[in-house]
Amino acid sequence: MSGNTFGTIFRITTWGESHGRAVGVVVDGCPAGLPLLVDDIQKELDRRRPGQSRVSTERKEEDRVEILSGTFEGQATGTPISMLVWNRDANSSAYDALRDRPRPGHADYTYQMKYGLRDHRGGGRASARETVGRVAAGAIAKKLLLKEGIEVVGYVTELGGVKADISSSDLALLRERAESNPVRCPDLVAVEKMLERLASARQEGDSLGGMAEIVAAGVPAGLGEPVFDNLDADLAKALMSLGAVKAVEIGAGRKCASMLGSEGNDPLTVQDGKIGFKSNNAGGILGGISTGAPIVCRIAVKPTPSISRIQQTVDLSTGEAAEISIKGRHDPTIPPRIVPVAEAMVAVVLADHLLRSRANRLEFV
Amino acid sequence: MSGNTFGTIFRITTWGESHGRAVGVVVDGCPAGLPLLVDDIQKELDRRRPGQSRVSTERKEEDRVEILSGTFEGQATGTPISMLVWNRDANSSAYDALRDRPRPGHADYTYQMKYGLRDHRGGGRASARETVGRVAAGAIAKKLLLKEGIEVVGYVTELGGVKADISSSDLALLRERAESNPVRCPDLVAVEKMLERLASARQEGDSLGGMAEIVAAGVPAGLGEPVFDNLDADLAKALMSLGAVKAVEIGAGRKCASMLGSEGNDPLTVQDGKIGFKSNNAGGILGGISTGAPIVCRIAVKPTPSISRIQQTVDLSTGEAAEISIKGRHDPTIPPRIVPVAEAMVAVVLADHLLRSRANRLEFV
Amino acid sequence: MSGNTFGTIFRITTWGESHGRAVGVVVDGCPAGLPLLVDDIQKELDRRRPGQSRVSTERKEEDRVEILSGTFEGQATGTPISMLVWNRDANSSAYDALRDRPRPGHADYTYQMKYGLRDHRGGGRASARETVGRVAAGAIAKKLLLKEGIEVVGYVTELGGVKADISSSDLALLRERAESNPVRCPDLVAVEKMLERLASARQEGDSLGGMAEIVAAGVPAGLGEPVFDNLDADLAKALMSLGAVKAVEIGAGRKCASMLGSEGNDPLTVQDGKIGFKSNNAGGILGGISTGAPIVCRIAVKPTPSISRIQQTVDLSTGEAAEISIKGRHDPTIPPRIVPVAEAMVAVVLADHLLRSRANRLEFV
Amino acid sequence: MSGNTFGTIFRITTWGESHGRAVGVVVDGCPAGLPLLVDDIQKELDRRRPGQSRVSTERKEEDRVEILSGTFEGQATGTPISMLVWNRDANSSAYDALRDRPRPGHADYTYQMKYGLRDHRGGGRASARETVGRVAAGAIAKKLLLKEGIEVVGYVTELGGVKADISSSDLALLRERAESNPVRCPDLVAVEKMLERLASARQEGDSLGGMAEIVAAGVPAGLGEPVFDNLDADLAKALMSLGAVKAVEIGAGRKCASMLGSEGNDPLTVQDGKIGFKSNNAGGILGGISTGAPIVCRIAVKPTPSISRIQQTVDLSTGEAAEISIKGRHDPTIPPRIVPVAEAMVAVVLADHLLRSRANRLEFV
Repeated sequence: MSGNTFGTIFRITTWGESHGRAVGVVVDGCPAGLPLLVDDIQKELDRRRPGQSRVSTERKEEDRVEILSGTFEGQATGTPISMLVWNRDANSSAYDALRDRPRPGHADYTYQMKYGLRDHRGGGRASARETVGRVAAGAIAKKLLLKEGIEVVGYVTELGGVKADISSSDLALLRERAESNPVRCPDLVAVEKMLERLASARQEGDSLGGMAEIVAAGVPAGLGEPVFDNLDADLAKALMSLGAVKAVEIGAGRKCASMLGSEGNDPLTVQDGKIGFKSNNAGGILGGISTGAPIVCRIAVKPTPSISRIQQTVDLSTGEAAEISIKGRHDPTIPPRIVPVAEAMVAVVLADHLLRSRANRLEFV
Repeated sequence: MSGNTFGTIFRITTWGESHGRAVGVVVDGCPAGLPLLVDDIQKELDRRRPGQSRVSTERKEEDRVEILSGTFEGQATGTPISMLVWNRDANSSAYDALRDRPRPGHADYTYQMKYGLRDHRGGGRASARETVGRVAAGAIAKKLLLKEGIEVVGYVTELGGVKADISSSDLALLRERAESNPVRCPDLVAVEKMLERLASARQEGDSLGGMAEIVAAGVPAGLGEPVFDNLDADLAKALMSLGAVKAVEIGAGRKCASMLGSEGNDPLTVQDGKIGFKSNNAGGILGGISTGAPIVCRIAVKPTPSISRIQQTVDLSTGEAAEISIKGRHDPTIPPRIVPVAEAMVAVVLADHLLRSRANRLEFV
Repeated sequence: MSGNTFGTIFRITTWGESHGRAVGVVVDGCPAGLPLLVDDIQKELDRRRPGQSRVSTERKEEDRVEILSGTFEGQATGTPISMLVWNRDANSSAYDALRDRPRPGHADYTYQMKYGLRDHRGGGRASARETVGRVAAGAIAKKLLLKEGIEVVGYVTELGGVKADISSSDLALLRERAESNPVRCPDLVAVEKMLERLASARQEGDSLGGMAEIVAAGVPAGLGEPVFDNLDADLAKALMSLGAVKAVEIGAGRKCASMLGSEGNDPLTVQDGKIGFKSNNAGGILGGISTGAPIVCRIAVKPTPSISRIQQTVDLSTGEAAEISIKGRHDPTIPPRIVPVAEAMVAVVLADHLLRSRANRLEFV
Repeated sequence: MSGNTFGTIFRITTWGESHGRAVGVVVDGCPAGLPLLVDDIQKELDRRRPGQSRVSTERKEEDRVEILSGTFEGQATGTPISMLVWNRDANSSAYDALRDRPRPGHADYTYQMKYGLRDHRGGGRASARETVGRVAAGAIAKKLLLKEGIEVVGYVTELGGVKADISSSDLALLRERAESNPVRCPDLVAVEKMLERLASARQEGDSLGGMAEIVAAGVPAGLGEPVFDNLDADLAKALMSLGAVKAVEIGAGRKCASMLGSEGNDPLTVQDGKIGFKSNNAGGILGGISTGAPIVCRIAVKPTPSISRIQQTVDLSTGEAAEISIKGRHDPTIPPRIVPVAEAMVAVVLADHLLRSRANRLEFV
């Protein structure tokens, strides 16, 4: 197995189950000297915390992070940073009925097939609660990136079929607007429609899918390690590793399929002696290496699989067809809460490649 | 650096530049005893070989593969399998003009920024010629998968805006039809339109983008290593590592963004005592682990960046704006030739996860 | 960096500093279904615990391990097993004087040079306390190995120049005797002399070096992955990664340098239809792969660098020569307490290679 | 499997069998811009080439290396460097008799047990011929290290029980003397006795073991990645991965077992404002990190297992006891020829850690 570690130089290992004692992460490879306090981590965890609004699960978790190692007198020491969050409000009884009945759209069936047994409570390891560790690690990555002038911003661009109009490229503004509303969408007109759709879906015991975009600005040209550890390849892996993500796009993404070469190619330009690009269909990556333009990723997020409507499944204990109606407390849609998680994953990839890029210079002045 | 190795147990390392002496691959981790002959590799290389038809580059390469190690008396020995293909018909003179003028949409600029120097001839390492090694490795992976009843089939589903109608799920038929025409599309009506668009684009010195789908049938439930080495995450990385790919979808992919949970979830069913799914929006993967249903991946492929139309770029030697018209010999569209490469990458991922899944059983009967 | 993870399939990541809040480990890749209780871990930690006898440090730590994830109803689930031990009796004041004066024979100077800062309290990350995580992980590895009939036993063979007579090859007996005395040496006559030397060294504010042997019985032929991940290579790395180890031997080890080929080669034999070896100079490994004979490793352990005798060092704050007399609580010799740690490292390597060996079979019955 | 790749940033993958078509290596992670010509590689290969003197095998191989990728106009491009050497003088007929009779002290039996089949000719993959790839890779590593003022020198310190007197620490002199004689020992008095022992062993159809020392001077303080990828741990793995090595020592090595702490600790000193050490029992490594003092490694090399004296083995086809007398062409002792190989492995480890150390700086000026 051993699939719970991600990254090469900046490397994270998450652990924990939804209803186990705690969830956490070990971050290895953070350069010594990075200023790092609990608050740096906590503020990102607060963004993904459940129970924040009417569009997220009602599970109440304070999600107070503890740093157990790897810092000294407010700085990273270069040794592994172990962080954990205790699980407090786990209510496992709601899951008893699901022990033998895999929920459609969930990992229940596949975990059972792979491991032969599983902690079924709250989805166990496959729960979105696992992403606490990712967000905590991402907070450190973001801090490291910020020192280099790199910023990662995410927001929802589509929800329940409602498409947002994202004409601005002012990341600070996009972030501010996105964080001002419960669906994390910077188009405030679209937000209203999204909330309506959400209310209506919830009423019918159903859930909505959507899309989110994550942009990284300030990334220098030259990050990425062809031909397999391409920057886009690692971003795709990082984002697709989120359970609800079913598509990853870079730059023009899906649209490039219907473009002509003369439309798709971003012409190079010179302005004030600095090389740039007239457009950014490449999404800031060519040949797996960053171009210096903003990195633009987009993810398609499936509707929350946990819905209260009756669904067909199988009873594993009898091998016979069965029905299921999922109780528990669930987000009616995932994109708003996946934003900080996706940002974290993008930040981890960029931090890793930033450090990797330093290892391959001949001259080290 | 060290980004040229892919996989964990079944692990491939490619090397070589477009106009260097040869291109090749080392495959480590192929189980001993697998019957393996040069023909097994050659037949896949023949599928990606340039100069096959009017929709591919005119570069003439026989691409005869040589196996230099790792087999004995027609079987893999479990030691590294080194394979190479000599570069014969490289014509570097066409690239002299490009040494200082990065081609838009190409990796010229990013390689130069990353490495400070580059072999500019034929795109060097960033050339699609690098994929010879991937296809050779994929041929071994396919052989291994076939022993387990797993088959990987790819075809073009869209080209230059023309969408194919892929209603069949008969993989043998899809493959047969796809391989019967130069655009590798199983919808023969669409093929005609695609060829028209291609002819017209070529006449204007332009190129077309498109989409391809890769399906793996016979994959048992239980492959994939959460939470980072998810099967879909590794497929996304493998496919996004191809230079021309800008989006990767699994199952319903992009479409799931506008679905309701009740539409997106695939209900579990029982038929003849065997558990299955009524639909396959998941594309055969839930929680990063295979469900037993066919694995379905889709890639968006950008138009060939090498076009003869005049484009704007920068002269790196002077730092001033410049124009470029790319000569050389180039495919007018990439999807038909990316199909065998994408199949190879999917096969490598599946072979790796097949072997990985064997390592985590408690009982090893 | 990222040097805090070890292993490929059975993979451990340790974290924590001597005087930080806790020390711990994440074990990834333990097969699902392995019965696992806190006691399985605790009994091994008790063997390495400080304060057990007059030959170990007086630091009092109960070292109660907590399992935070990865088990369910008494079994491993196949997900990461996170374990920690809180630091209770850390007395950092004794280390204040050492902040700027690196202790000779310690990692103080090198950590400072590498990271630019360090948690100097109790040796920080370089403290032997880090091995708590290794022993906890090793306990799981041992449990897994035992299922396959593999047992790992270690004992001291030399201390302060006193060499033990280890004529027996009865591992159960060797273990029983070794565990019966504070120096963990199975030769009870030698034990008395060792204890005398220890008493005398301690009186002079000095410390002793020694040697330990670790034997693994029941290892099947065929483990090890040439040509770099050889079983002996991985054992050498695992054991040399312990701070006090300065030499690693396999089988005849150092002695083979003065042997003739006809002496060194172990003749193959057949007994009751089973192939074996007449001698075991190879220490159970040929060409990096296990032979089926017992694996025999030996380590040379340097004397505890922390001694109360006055030593010469440098004051990093002034850059001038300085003297140092180390207070704190330290083991007067390391071998007795390194035994369970070395066993743990050997067990981790064997568990990893056991699982790796399963991944490379063509037939998976 | 996949054990044929070594290193993290500077990463080598070797391939090839003794009597296959060629042996080779792919080096990934060499920084772009390193001047690199075939001669840089060839001169190191010439040092390990067989047939050089009366103390090595009579197999005649010119071992002309070819660079197939990764360089352009005399410089490394940062892409993988693929190198190969064709096998010319393989004489497989001498091995026919060995197909079913594993040679004692060789990997024949273990490869057969692991893989179920093997290329038995000339030892196949387990042949010392595999080290051609290591030496070629090491030549690049040495070139990289030399740019940083780091030099790696090896020599024989003991052969057939004759111990050399290595009092000098003048590496240039040690190298010059070592390279001046067929046993690669810098003590010319000892050389005579070694040659006598060799002649006598050969006459009796026997072989000799010995020891070699490898020293790296100029290594800056701060290389090594605790707690597992320690510099000494990686050196131990690298050296123990050589088939004939049965012990690895760092610094005082085995001797530290009988030292007092007050003897073993190297006092820190200041001279001309520079911190150093009065002695070097640590062998230049403390806590897994380089101290700035010379890195000193020592290896015990077993006698060549291929001897013409009759030995006992087993016939795998009948399962019965059998005898064997090994013909073929073999080195009567391994240390003289292992010197360039061991140097190569040390160089690869140092190059990797040099590059790794660059990745973990917070400030990258």
